[in-house]
Amino acid sequence: MDSSPTAAARRAAAIAATMRRIGYLTRRGVFRGWLTEPGPDAELHKLALLECLGVYDHSLAIKVGVHFFLWGGAVKFLGTKRHHDKWLLDTENYVIKGCFAMTELGHGSNVRGIETVATYDSKTGEFVINTPCESAQKYWIGGAANHATHTIVFAQLHINGRNEGVHAFIAQIRDQDENVLPNIHIADCGHKIGLNGVDNGRIWFNNIRVPRENLLNLVADVLPDGKYVSMIDNPDQRFAAFLSPLTLGRVNIAVNAVYISKVGLAIAVRYALSRRAFSITPEGPEMLLLDYPSHQRRLLPLLAKVCMMSSASNFMKNVYVKRTPEISKAIHVYSSALKATLTWQNMTTLQECREACGGQGLKTENRLGIFKAEFDVQSTFEGDNNVLLQQVSKALYAEFLTTQRKKKPFKGLGLEHLNGPCPVIPHSLTSDILRSSKFQMDLFCLRERDLLKQFAEEVARYLAQGESRERALMLSYQIAEDLARAFTERTILQIFLEDEMNAPAGSLKDVLGLLRSMYVMVCIDESASFLRYGYLSRDNVATVRKEVMILCSELRPHALAIVDSFGIPDAFLSPLAFDWIEANALSSGSE
Amino acid sequence: MDSSPTAAARRAAAIAATMRRIGYLTRRGVFRGWLTEPGPDAELHKLALLECLGVYDHSLAIKVGVHFFLWGGAVKFLGTKRHHDKWLLDTENYVIKGCFAMTELGHGSNVRGIETVATYDSKTGEFVINTPCESAQKYWIGGAANHATHTIVFAQLHINGRNEGVHAFIAQIRDQDENVLPNIHIADCGHKIGLNGVDNGRIWFNNIRVPRENLLNLVADVLPDGKYVSMIDNPDQRFAAFLSPLTLGRVNIAVNAVYISKVGLAIAVRYALSRRAFSITPEGPEMLLLDYPSHQRRLLPLLAKVCMMSSASNFMKNVYVKRTPEISKAIHVYSSALKATLTWQNMTTLQECREACGGQGLKTENRLGIFKAEFDVQSTFEGDNNVLLQQVSKALYAEFLTTQRKKKPFKGLGLEHLNGPCPVIPHSLTSDILRSSKFQMDLFCLRERDLLKQFAEEVARYLAQGESRERALMLSYQIAEDLARAFTERTILQIFLEDEMNAPAGSLKDVLGLLRSMYVMVCIDESASFLRYGYLSRDNVATVRKEVMILCSELRPHALAIVDSFGIPDAFLSPLAFDWIEANALSSGSE
Repeated sequence: MDSSPTAAARRAAAIAATMRRIGYLTRRGVFRGWLTEPGPDAELHKLALLECLGVYDHSLAIKVGVHFFLWGGAVKFLGTKRHHDKWLLDTENYVIKGCFAMTELGHGSNVRGIETVATYDSKTGEFVINTPCESAQKYWIGGAANHATHTIVFAQLHINGRNEGVHAFIAQIRDQDENVLPNIHIADCGHKIGLNGVDNGRIWFNNIRVPRENLLNLVADVLPDGKYVSMIDNPDQRFAAFLSPLTLGRVNIAVNAVYISKVGLAIAVRYALSRRAFSITPEGPEMLLLDYPSHQRRLLPLLAKVCMMSSASNFMKNVYVKRTPEISKAIHVYSSALKATLTWQNMTTLQECREACGGQGLKTENRLGIFKAEFDVQSTFEGDNNVLLQQVSKALYAEFLTTQRKKKPFKGLGLEHLNGPCPVIPHSLTSDILRSSKFQMDLFCLRERDLLKQFAEEVARYLAQGESRERALMLSYQIAEDLARAFTERTILQIFLEDEMNAPAGSLKDVLGLLRSMYVMVCIDESASFLRYGYLSRDNVATVRKEVMILCSELRPHALAIVDSFGIPDAFLSPLAFDWIEANALSSGSE
Repeated sequence: MDSSPTAAARRAAAIAATMRRIGYLTRRGVFRGWLTEPGPDAELHKLALLECLGVYDHSLAIKVGVHFFLWGGAVKFLGTKRHHDKWLLDTENYVIKGCFAMTELGHGSNVRGIETVATYDSKTGEFVINTPCESAQKYWIGGAANHATHTIVFAQLHINGRNEGVHAFIAQIRDQDENVLPNIHIADCGHKIGLNGVDNGRIWFNNIRVPRENLLNLVADVLPDGKYVSMIDNPDQRFAAFLSPLTLGRVNIAVNAVYISKVGLAIAVRYALSRRAFSITPEGPEMLLLDYPSHQRRLLPLLAKVCMMSSASNFMKNVYVKRTPEISKAIHVYSSALKATLTWQNMTTLQECREACGGQGLKTENRLGIFKAEFDVQSTFEGDNNVLLQQVSKALYAEFLTTQRKKKPFKGLGLEHLNGPCPVIPHSLTSDILRSSKFQMDLFCLRERDLLKQFAEEVARYLAQGESRERALMLSYQIAEDLARAFTERTILQIFLEDEMNAPAGSLKDVLGLLRSMYVMVCIDESASFLRYGYLSRDNVATVRKEVMILCSELRPHALAIVDSFGIPDAFLSPLAFDWIEANALSSGSE
């Protein structure tokens, strides 16, 4: 068990290191224009840097992300000119340091249930922000424990005894000398299994006062006399607008998860190409790990998945930076589906890579084990993965109802395939058929179509039994999960196919085809759903299983080239990815 | 990234703390008799203490385990009277400190390939032990980096230019003042993601000399003139004898994994019974997490599994302490199957518990996240899980061949069901049938029987194609995995059923029945194999899936009682298992 003083001291050192790194980057001018330069190219540019930071030091990326994308993003996208003029440039220059106080001890995913209150005082034209109970303390607020000078506070807006729902306010919490302001209490969240370079804090507000102008008023405002006005009548839509800064967070997380999987696989594949174990002939040399069919089966499907997911995450990022109001719902669905799927896959990948490296995978210097702890948070922050996937299914269900009611075709989210005839899967599957993109898309579309129908039917059945809509959806969680997975896997395949089609004919395109087929085959092999719902026969899945083994042997010669193509600099890998015997030599001075 | 001096300093502190704890326990006399008192009761007594230590501090349990069960066990079970007289009492009293130098940088699972050499010098009657190359450095040797005074060295025994294979020797490596002896080099293995309280070290031997008597000579000896004599002619069996000290390690690990899962589930279930999120009626209170069917589906099957696995691990422990030479093969198979299955299940359980607790699961004080890092090692040490499961299938295959060749019935390992007629699964499954132990055993036996047959057929097909036996087994890894899982799940069910039958009729027995049915239903629901191989129809598995949901709702009221029944002391749980709002209060002084 950890003795607290040591843990506290080392956390303090890690937090200081993160801030030093931010200072260095700020002085080098890398953040210039991050909140003031418009356009998709500028946005892609800064996201690229953030991705590099994430591979180097997760804490650094998260601390920068909170400051620019949560605090800065909220000021920019929920605020108006008066906020932009006052805060954006200072944020860019780190003259002020921002954080984002949404989550509370008692409320995470259910943001609408937060208990912090902002009461408007028309006599002074101020909001009085208060933490009414212990469960309302702001929690996990990145940057709050040590450095942040300002925060966005999410609170229930009370005016004349009426609750107008959750709104966002700017509050200063420290002066420029980093002293906490009066009537604010801040405490550290304590040592965690990862992200210890981020000073996650807890905040209590004891009736602090902020000027009326500090309400981020893009979608709703309070006039000096206390009259509440909103450009969005529907409270649900108004609330959704307040959550929009989180979307970029989900995009970043999904992209980052893919990079980390790539680092993990680069290490594990390289080790499997240099580590030998057992010989299968009496006096023969020991075999390379990656020459074992079972070891290929462990690593190569993960390689295929990460390549497919890399395409998907890039697609999502590009859609995001070119976003328009019309596609905000699609972005929400894509980012939810991919954030959940890619972060879970990252954990699966890292675990397999760690085990495939044996005990070496546990050494801190080899990164894999540390990554597992560092990136575990991804499956629950910026939206719990389980909740996000439920939202995906609910959104698809809503689309289904709309098209039925309006008798209009499906449009968007790649759902257009639902307008056509139901695909037919050949009875007997040859290797050629299995590897054809037509069969693969047909199968994934068939599954999605059927599960959407089944989900709608199951919800309808519960409704007919007198259950409320909420309970009906809640009780249908099993099919909802299958549907969300079916949607996500079809989406990933579809996006990859477009990238593959754009590749010039030749060996690259051939390898992309192998990766795609491997992806589809393992999706089938690892899920019971194709058999469960009858999309494939037992003979079919037996053929698929054989095909996985064949694809393993075909991808084996390309494994090194594929991990090299990830372009991870050597310094970001680990000793295990190179000459690990030399690195462990008595003379290497490692001790 | 971690700065090395800090990491080194904190590792030194953790290593010192472990040794202090051992000193405390030694002074209290808790280790008295651990190597000298005979009989199953004494053995169960010490294993019980080791299990408690493991829940408190994994490093402490491992360091004690290496000293008593690897070093001490090797002296006791591979050595003879001269070794017992000289070392056992001093080991018990910690007058000397032992370690176990089997693994090398280049060889882990493949112990027969180790490169350390012990050459007999008949002129002096000594063995000369040497590390001939960097890959031969001893690696991961628990206790070696700081404290061990003695070690068992595994080395290829060379006599007159002939290699007699791997043998075990006792060598002193430090004097009583903890100075490393001449011609031995020792280095630390460095910081790891867990077990940092264990001083895992690397050892190089530069032609050190140990007396002839230091060969552990139960199964083979070298006479003064250099003549090699062995009581076991077959080198394979001789080698297997040398690995026997590892068996208890596997038993301990499997038992320990179950305890850790219990702690994790106690925390996550208690949190799910105190944390609320979302309400499903407009003005209603928020729902407890454990009242969500989807949350029940996440945690309650894990609860059922850990109860079943607890039975199995206790069974195995009791078989082990009453071991006879006749059942050593059965113990090897059981301990391999259960070590692999229970440790993987532990990681799955901890991951789900951590996510089910959201961000709180990441806080060091809440243990779940730390457990994930601490116990990750279990899936690869004392036998890589994948390798162990392959050995299980190989052992079953060997049994199959023997019964065929000798035309004798199956005996042992619970395989007697293979002698009877093939069970018949009813076409239509009601809830009553699904929950009957007869159906459950029939289904699991049917699957095991068929997969064993299929495995043997697949191997035979490869052999007929001219593949060697080794390659044929290697290429059949997919069915081998399914078979090992089928064997293990049937074994766990069978053991639990015996415990259940011995429980008095009443509410306890009813809950045990619910847990058993939940276990079987989720085994079916989570694996494609029942559909893949046609043991169940699509309608059947749809019924099973509904039954899982019903069982969740029936187990929900018992969840707290079940985790309480684990008997984990409050101090071994975490703040999250109790009043976590109070623990986080501003006034709690936690900051």
